[in-house]
Amino acid sequence: MADCTVSFQPHNKAVTVRKGTTLLEAALKANITINNLCGGDGICGRCKMIIKKGNIPEEVSGKLTREEITRGYVLACLTQVMENLVVEIPPETLAREKIVDDEDADRFKEFGQLAQAGDEFVFSPIVKKIYLDLDSPTLDNNTADQQRVCEAVHREIGSGATQMGLKIIRNLPAILRGNNYKVTATVGFRRDIAEIMNIEPGNTAGKNYMIVIDIGTTTIVAHLVDANRIRTIAAKACFNSQGIYGSEVTSRIISAEKRGIVELQKLLISDINGLIRGLAKEDRINLKDITAVVCAGNTVMSHFLLGLPTRYIRRKPYTPTSVDPPPFRAVEVGIQINPRGLLYSLPGISGWVGSDITAGILATNIIDRDGISLLVDIGTNGEIIVGNREWLVACSASAGPALEGANVTCGIRAETGAIEKVYIKNRKIQYKTIGFVPPKGFCGSGIIDLVSVLFNMGIIDRRGRFLDGLDEGVQELNGQKVYLLVDRKKSGHGNHVFISESDIENVITAKAAIFAAMKILLARLDMSFDDVSHFYIAGAFGNHIDIESAISIGLIPNIDRNKIIFAGNTSVKGAKLAAYFQHAFNRVAQIRAKTTYYDLMGADDYVEEFRKAMFLPHTDIELFKGEKVWQKA
Amino acid sequence: MADCTVSFQPHNKAVTVRKGTTLLEAALKANITINNLCGGDGICGRCKMIIKKGNIPEEVSGKLTREEITRGYVLACLTQVMENLVVEIPPETLAREKIVDDEDADRFKEFGQLAQAGDEFVFSPIVKKIYLDLDSPTLDNNTADQQRVCEAVHREIGSGATQMGLKIIRNLPAILRGNNYKVTATVGFRRDIAEIMNIEPGNTAGKNYMIVIDIGTTTIVAHLVDANRIRTIAAKACFNSQGIYGSEVTSRIISAEKRGIVELQKLLISDINGLIRGLAKEDRINLKDITAVVCAGNTVMSHFLLGLPTRYIRRKPYTPTSVDPPPFRAVEVGIQINPRGLLYSLPGISGWVGSDITAGILATNIIDRDGISLLVDIGTNGEIIVGNREWLVACSASAGPALEGANVTCGIRAETGAIEKVYIKNRKIQYKTIGFVPPKGFCGSGIIDLVSVLFNMGIIDRRGRFLDGLDEGVQELNGQKVYLLVDRKKSGHGNHVFISESDIENVITAKAAIFAAMKILLARLDMSFDDVSHFYIAGAFGNHIDIESAISIGLIPNIDRNKIIFAGNTSVKGAKLAAYFQHAFNRVAQIRAKTTYYDLMGADDYVEEFRKAMFLPHTDIELFKGEKVWQKA
Repeated sequence: MADCTVSFQPHNKAVTVRKGTTLLEAALKANITINNLCGGDGICGRCKMIIKKGNIPEEVSGKLTREEITRGYVLACLTQVMENLVVEIPPETLAREKIVDDEDADRFKEFGQLAQAGDEFVFSPIVKKIYLDLDSPTLDNNTADQQRVCEAVHREIGSGATQMGLKIIRNLPAILRGNNYKVTATVGFRRDIAEIMNIEPGNTAGKNYMIVIDIGTTTIVAHLVDANRIRTIAAKACFNSQGIYGSEVTSRIISAEKRGIVELQKLLISDINGLIRGLAKEDRINLKDITAVVCAGNTVMSHFLLGLPTRYIRRKPYTPTSVDPPPFRAVEVGIQINPRGLLYSLPGISGWVGSDITAGILATNIIDRDGISLLVDIGTNGEIIVGNREWLVACSASAGPALEGANVTCGIRAETGAIEKVYIKNRKIQYKTIGFVPPKGFCGSGIIDLVSVLFNMGIIDRRGRFLDGLDEGVQELNGQKVYLLVDRKKSGHGNHVFISESDIENVITAKAAIFAAMKILLARLDMSFDDVSHFYIAGAFGNHIDIESAISIGLIPNIDRNKIIFAGNTSVKGAKLAAYFQHAFNRVAQIRAKTTYYDLMGADDYVEEFRKAMFLPHTDIELFKGEKVWQKA
Repeated sequence: MADCTVSFQPHNKAVTVRKGTTLLEAALKANITINNLCGGDGICGRCKMIIKKGNIPEEVSGKLTREEITRGYVLACLTQVMENLVVEIPPETLAREKIVDDEDADRFKEFGQLAQAGDEFVFSPIVKKIYLDLDSPTLDNNTADQQRVCEAVHREIGSGATQMGLKIIRNLPAILRGNNYKVTATVGFRRDIAEIMNIEPGNTAGKNYMIVIDIGTTTIVAHLVDANRIRTIAAKACFNSQGIYGSEVTSRIISAEKRGIVELQKLLISDINGLIRGLAKEDRINLKDITAVVCAGNTVMSHFLLGLPTRYIRRKPYTPTSVDPPPFRAVEVGIQINPRGLLYSLPGISGWVGSDITAGILATNIIDRDGISLLVDIGTNGEIIVGNREWLVACSASAGPALEGANVTCGIRAETGAIEKVYIKNRKIQYKTIGFVPPKGFCGSGIIDLVSVLFNMGIIDRRGRFLDGLDEGVQELNGQKVYLLVDRKKSGHGNHVFISESDIENVITAKAAIFAAMKILLARLDMSFDDVSHFYIAGAFGNHIDIESAISIGLIPNIDRNKIIFAGNTSVKGAKLAAYFQHAFNRVAQIRAKTTYYDLMGADDYVEEFRKAMFLPHTDIELFKGEKVWQKA
């Protein structure tokens, strides 16, 4: 097959590809990260490019406007390269700049209090820098260098086995004598083992940082934290670049089987490095002072992080390679922090209940609470955990990324310019953006609000279809019915901000999957929502979701509001707990032992429940009718 | 400075060196290992070479015969290269082939019984291969691969933290599924930590071997042992090739400061690899089935093994880099066994009391015995330990390698052809060689015997000088007085086998250093030899030494023979104990805590005691006079 050259503008990057390659793949080959969430199925319509020179096969996508088509726009994922091309990539197609979730840092200030509540949680970060002002050897005390250091470290940390690498030991005589026996030891912990992973000249103990990461299928959230005290310095998030290979974990696994795990691992590591670099740069922290990365995520993401084979997770009997990997040196997977820094991957439970869930259980502490708790973690997969001190049952439902602002035409991450709130004021639909700037799209909470508002105002019916003539916002755009919330003239990027019927369908599908899963899981336990004493809602959007909107679309049941606790991103919170408290890290073993996985695929009635939930708020409208239940009767 | 080319025959190897380089250094650069024990001081006379082409500066060594000088012989260490040369290396100058100490294997058969005596010593080798016939995953049991393996291993080994490398984990899905879940795990232990260091297809548990090594300054002894049961398969020994840089640890340290530690490490590792290869080849054992190397040695040798800086050991306050390094992968220092095999270096006590001594204390078990024990380990350094259940005091005296068959003109290792016994029969001096072949030189026990015999027959005086005309064996050879034991016509290599006055002086110096050390150490403890209940003699020659010869030259005191125990090479025995019994390995911590080091250099009276002992058997002849003490009075 012949090769063609594709030149990308404004990057001025050219790549040679085989005839028949898609433009999207060509851009990937040119190392240009572009917005694409549907995995190349031509559905999300985000990978728009403009053909400047050369011909392409005729294939017109409904995702493009007539005007765009006239101007040479194509969807990169649907466009095959058949001859040499010059292609322009418009700014909105390029992967969004990774924007700080400034608010996340604020949100996690409460974390300090939360952690200190449990008195058994003694501050014991997973990496510790210890300043050692050692005695110089004398004839009466000529203990060997390594033992001198180890004994001093032991005095600080208590007993337990100590490890030390050969290079560190070899360098000890020079570093001790060159610094008058004043050095700083970086110690990494794992259960009973302490590794003296680095020895630095002088006192650097004041500068010790960790990165805590929630690796979501759609969204990656990274927090920069101080290892010396409970303090979140900053947070950043980005979409997971693996999105180019599909929005669901299954399509990622299939891609890994075709392209090799390393290909998907690279994208993830590159995202993580980008977040870390960004956090370090803004806060003027030297990468070498970051000594640990603590990650939580679903099991497939945890596998990609370490480059572990994923193929058997999606095949019966769904066996992961590891759910409790030991810590490795971060550099072993290409993460750029201190070259001797450690990478901890929090232990998960099974192929479909990952460390994001054990982290969630840690963060909500439901194994220490009276009564029955239910934790629903809303992400690309919705995970539900029900349990108490004695037992925990978990299940997982594929929801899709709509509630994270993906798989929705104008969906974006919860970043500056995202509509995070939609409400009715003076009988008109109003909205609020993050940062109070002109809107660029909806984040998850905005989407839930908008669907709720449209339904409550009777603009859409119970199946999410637009009812004509009721509101001037309902328009026809590019051949599909949409509700136009923001005209392009008022938006932040010059494009309309709207929601389409298929967007609404994605939202309904997501909420139905999650609601049905909760119902089935409770039913198996001979319980109803009324038996739940603590109802935790977790997810990347966490604190922003409007509870009444969520109830009115049927995402969560109409229960006593006092029972509902917004737990935020419990994956990051739990990982942070594990990073700060070794006791918390070790507690995961307890959580694993108590947790049973319930496979919804084996539930005959799940599909039926799901179908019932495919209405707003539900076929069984009684479930959501009546006054708001402010107090349980 | 100009360069010259030196071509070595019969190797046909040429090297380019700077003008002024010695021939010895040139040979080293050409990677030709030659006999040299004095470290290039022109003393040992072993580095003879023949100049075939080219001129050399005039410098004639007394170590060469007139005939040799006529034939073009030179000492390589004293000969500077000033122009291009062609040089022949005679066979006797080349480093001796490493010959098996077949007898060592026999000697260690008793080890099994010894170890089994202590009932707390449960067989628990430091590396273990465990065959795992795992259940295939099912929907009811879809435990992750790593956890499946770890749990099965834990069932076999009990609790404790488990480690596993990233590469091993990545390869698990393929190796488990490719072998029907039947695999063999190799587990390495260190205190409470177990590392699953390898997973092999099928059942290979039957093939698991360890190498146990005593790294002496002069001699390296390696034993190949079965990790599945207490069985020494074979033993080999060689001279330490670092001898080229001097016979004492101090000169090695100085060389390391000049040439870099790596240079000396390389020689040691190359010797070790040679021994391992030889052992494996003869016993048809695959190197990959050797999963651990356990080493004991003096602290300087242990440092060279790992490439740790040695410079501060010889400077006040004599601080080593490490006396208790963790295990590393053997490949990290270049030892060729299984690529994931571990290298254990037994813990020592201080710069001058190494793991050969902790091993000796382990092997003799003096911390568990009633009464006072004295252990003297006769090597290039003579170490003495006195103690009981409560305390141990150790000291170290520089003896030189004479008693190991080095620093003696015709001294060789205890190998086939070595005169190991000299005795009087029918009023004539007789000898016996190892292997009953024509003699090639003396090993340590033969030298002690010969000096004893010469003294007892009045052929030498109390200062070790030949008394003329008393025996026809006393002759003048190459300008020095010698006792000719074997004429070249009867020897195994066509050269005379003799002992010179300076050889005898080396022997007297060695025994004097050791005897004085014992006396001083006991004096400091307000004790005499009579207070010692168990007198252990250890060393590479161990079982072969004749006790009466040793007493008659004043190496050991004239005490109750029932108290004397030949313990053999306790360094290897102790290391083997540690290899087979984790409890024994851990016991070294106890030994360290109980042991005090006494520095003879700080003893004002040591030099005086040493001088007194520089006579045969001693100035205080009363100490060694009278009937043999068969029973303590």
